Amino acid sequence: MIKFMVVLYRRPELAHEQFRRQLQDVHGLLAKKLPGLRKYVQNIVCDDPNRKPPGWDAVIELYFDDWSAMEAAWASPQGAASDADLPAFADLTRTTWSAVDEVIVLE
Amino acid sequence: MIKFMVVLYRRPELAHEQFRRQLQDVHGLLAKKLPGLRKYVQNIVCDDPNRKPPGWDAVIELYFDDWSAMEAAWASPQGAASDADLPAFADLTRTTWSAVDEVIVLE
Repeated sequence: MIKFMVVLYRRPELAHEQFRRQLQDVHGLLAKKLPGLRKYVQNIVCDDPNRKPPGWDAVIELYFDDWSAMEAAWASPQGAASDADLPAFADLTRTTWSAVDEVIVLE
Repeated sequence: MIKFMVVLYRRPELAHEQFRRQLQDVHGLLAKKLPGLRKYVQNIVCDDPNRKPPGWDAVIELYFDDWSAMEAAWASPQGAASDADLPAFADLTRTTWSAVDEVIVLE
């Protein structure tokens, strides 16, 4: 299993709620069609009375069977459609992504 | 269930492998003792021949039953011990954290 994570910043002119609607209701439907995608989670920053916002607006988790399945997904038409939707709501000058080793310490 | 995420940057003078050893072998053992912690995952950036590194070095996931359990964990002696260990390997000028709404789109 390979896990891919995205630290997502919204376009500065979007309110957090507009960003969330676009991420959940539009982008999520495109991304979940990626071929070979095994699990897909959107973690969206929520209000916190005790801490200041972190700067980023969401962290995305995508799981694939292996590295080649992941690369095939990004190279697919569905991957292109998902990528093409990102600039509608994401600030791509700040948004970053990486494959990660997932270490489950406690479950 | 409440989920808390940390986007973690290593101290610039640490090699990635030193950061990883401190995170897994020292910090992880402290953090997993947090009272009320239900699940704890360390996602550590791995080498990727096709993409540049994202800048951050790990994303951490911590799950608690609810908001008050989480706040009690951070206020506990174990929370203080975990926090006190962070500067040994984390760049706290760049590391950020937030509670998040976890939306499982595909599982």
